[in-house]
Amino acid sequence: MDELSDVFTAVSHPTRRAIIGQLAAGQARFTDIAQPFDTALNSVTKHLKLLERAGLIERKKQGREVFISFRGEPLREVAKWVHEYERFWKERLDQFEQHFQKMKEKKEKK
Amino acid sequence: MDELSDVFTAVSHPTRRAIIGQLAAGQARFTDIAQPFDTALNSVTKHLKLLERAGLIERKKQGREVFISFRGEPLREVAKWVHEYERFWKERLDQFEQHFQKMKEKKEKK
Repeated sequence: MDELSDVFTAVSHPTRRAIIGQLAAGQARFTDIAQPFDTALNSVTKHLKLLERAGLIERKKQGREVFISFRGEPLREVAKWVHEYERFWKERLDQFEQHFQKMKEKKEKK
Repeated sequence: MDELSDVFTAVSHPTRRAIIGQLAAGQARFTDIAQPFDTALNSVTKHLKLLERAGLIERKKQGREVFISFRGEPLREVAKWVHEYERFWKERLDQFEQHFQKMKEKKEKK
């Protein structure tokens, strides 16, 4: 699969988004990452593998410990992709605004 | 699963992103959507189901035909989510820029 698909797959699970949220505050050890989740360690390992494949985390050895940190770069492609469709929700917002503006004007005329 | 996870899952496949790209240019019939892809109609149906579950497409009956159109609103949540991590790739870009600026200054001194 292509890189962008890997990134979207990686962030498509709430647990993996929570891990990103946690690591965005600073690097952590595996046990720190696993601790808040009420799931098997095995499942945390799988989540981390998907994040790693997407380039969203990296592991660094510091002495005898391995620290996992967040890498934001792959999300730039997500932002780029979604930006292409921005006009679709902005147009809809504009339509809402115009609708409410008209309703307001009608009310004021009464 | 939550809505945002559904949206990320929906856009995590290149075929589904291609369908979004196609529908962003205007509504289309199922056969128009399936035609450019070298896959079984069955697989196109599955892709459309995932897009529909995420609220990214809607079907409208016009006479005897069903037209499928793109809805951009769910992508607003994607944009919001990714925006929270913007500083992570911007910081990295800044570091690159500073690095190149320094290299340039060194060169100019020589």
